[in-house]
Amino acid sequence: MSKKIEVCLTPSLIDLYDIEQSIVVVIDILRATSSITYGIENGATAIIPVANVEDCLNYSDKGYLLAAERNGEVVEGYDFGNSPFSYTKEKVSGKIIVLTTTNGTKALHLANKRAFQVVIGSFLNLDSLCEYLKKQDKNVLLLCAGWKDQFNLEDTLFAGAVVSKLRKNFEHFDDSSVAAEDLYSLAKDDLRKYLHKSSHSHRLAQLNIEEDVVFCLQLNVCEAIPVLQGEKLVKLVS
Amino acid sequence: MSKKIEVCLTPSLIDLYDIEQSIVVVIDILRATSSITYGIENGATAIIPVANVEDCLNYSDKGYLLAAERNGEVVEGYDFGNSPFSYTKEKVSGKIIVLTTTNGTKALHLANKRAFQVVIGSFLNLDSLCEYLKKQDKNVLLLCAGWKDQFNLEDTLFAGAVVSKLRKNFEHFDDSSVAAEDLYSLAKDDLRKYLHKSSHSHRLAQLNIEEDVVFCLQLNVCEAIPVLQGEKLVKLVS
Repeated sequence: MSKKIEVCLTPSLIDLYDIEQSIVVVIDILRATSSITYGIENGATAIIPVANVEDCLNYSDKGYLLAAERNGEVVEGYDFGNSPFSYTKEKVSGKIIVLTTTNGTKALHLANKRAFQVVIGSFLNLDSLCEYLKKQDKNVLLLCAGWKDQFNLEDTLFAGAVVSKLRKNFEHFDDSSVAAEDLYSLAKDDLRKYLHKSSHSHRLAQLNIEEDVVFCLQLNVCEAIPVLQGEKLVKLVS
Repeated sequence: MSKKIEVCLTPSLIDLYDIEQSIVVVIDILRATSSITYGIENGATAIIPVANVEDCLNYSDKGYLLAAERNGEVVEGYDFGNSPFSYTKEKVSGKIIVLTTTNGTKALHLANKRAFQVVIGSFLNLDSLCEYLKKQDKNVLLLCAGWKDQFNLEDTLFAGAVVSKLRKNFEHFDDSSVAAEDLYSLAKDDLRKYLHKSSHSHRLAQLNIEEDVVFCLQLNVCEAIPVLQGEKLVKLVS
């Protein structure tokens, strides 16, 4: 088939896309999908994304790890939030994690309702993800989680990185994929420096998570591709 | 005051913005806001944007010119559509025009409900518009009409041109204004060539309106700034 890539710049726009036969890549670089990738790479059995902090509590007596973040901070009383440094092998191997974040889990649930398949993208698993997408006979929608339904730079840059890698293997590109690819071409030599322009970057600087930002902008330190199976994110076996 | 510029990439996202005290610039480069600018420059008394083709007909016995475009083509039976070449001095001077277009009038009506002021932007009046915005003590929202609620390149490039001109006079910029400015920096030396990447450009090529596209990408051939007063677009007197 003649394959198409589109970039949905915020979850608010997802109803404009026909995704029943598409693979949707959910992108929330700072930090949900980076941490999910790292956690699955490090042997977490599953990560269960839930819509709100209260839903997390429904899992509290099952021995799962509970992770909740709102506005960039760990919610009081939870095991951890969405810093990738909480998703190390020592902490997550063999465990099930229940996670809610400001933007990422919302995007996941929106995609999960209609898509053929939902996978997780981050700079950490860029090449592995792109190799997978090249081989599938499906259209691709890159779904940026954004910040509270608004456009953000870091998710768009990652979408642009994917478009750039897949350009030769796809035939159709919408305007937002052209824009994302061009922005990535401007930013790729120093992603951290480029993101200093971003309003989210200022917010994150205030939260003192510069180490997390640097971690999340590393390319190809993971092979795992998390995939939604029912309500759980697990490691894709392709 | 410390002034803010934001770019709303499609009309679907406008509810995310607080615009009660902002000037909203409506942008539909190909071709509604270019033609509106040119028509007001050429002495049209007023242009009345209406939501749909049927609403246009309500004005048919008033001696107004009726302009209706859908999917890039003039609707049968109307005086003209939104080609700028229909808005010359000979055709529109002293006249009132009733206009409906696919994307532009929808964006205008959404903005008109809440904004402090709604003005019209196009490459044709770029400098004139920016000089006006610099002098006002108001935040600015650049509202891209897009294509059927999706992001498009040409409207975003114009938003980027405005951000670029106003950077020294404003203090706060959201992520989409940073992206728009950077895309404009890539495109500005040859806007037409850049837009060949766009899906809309392919659509327009099929409609055989290359002359219109070239016309709409001219910088600063007009001084007029159309402004909404009630339901009518008229020439701003500043």
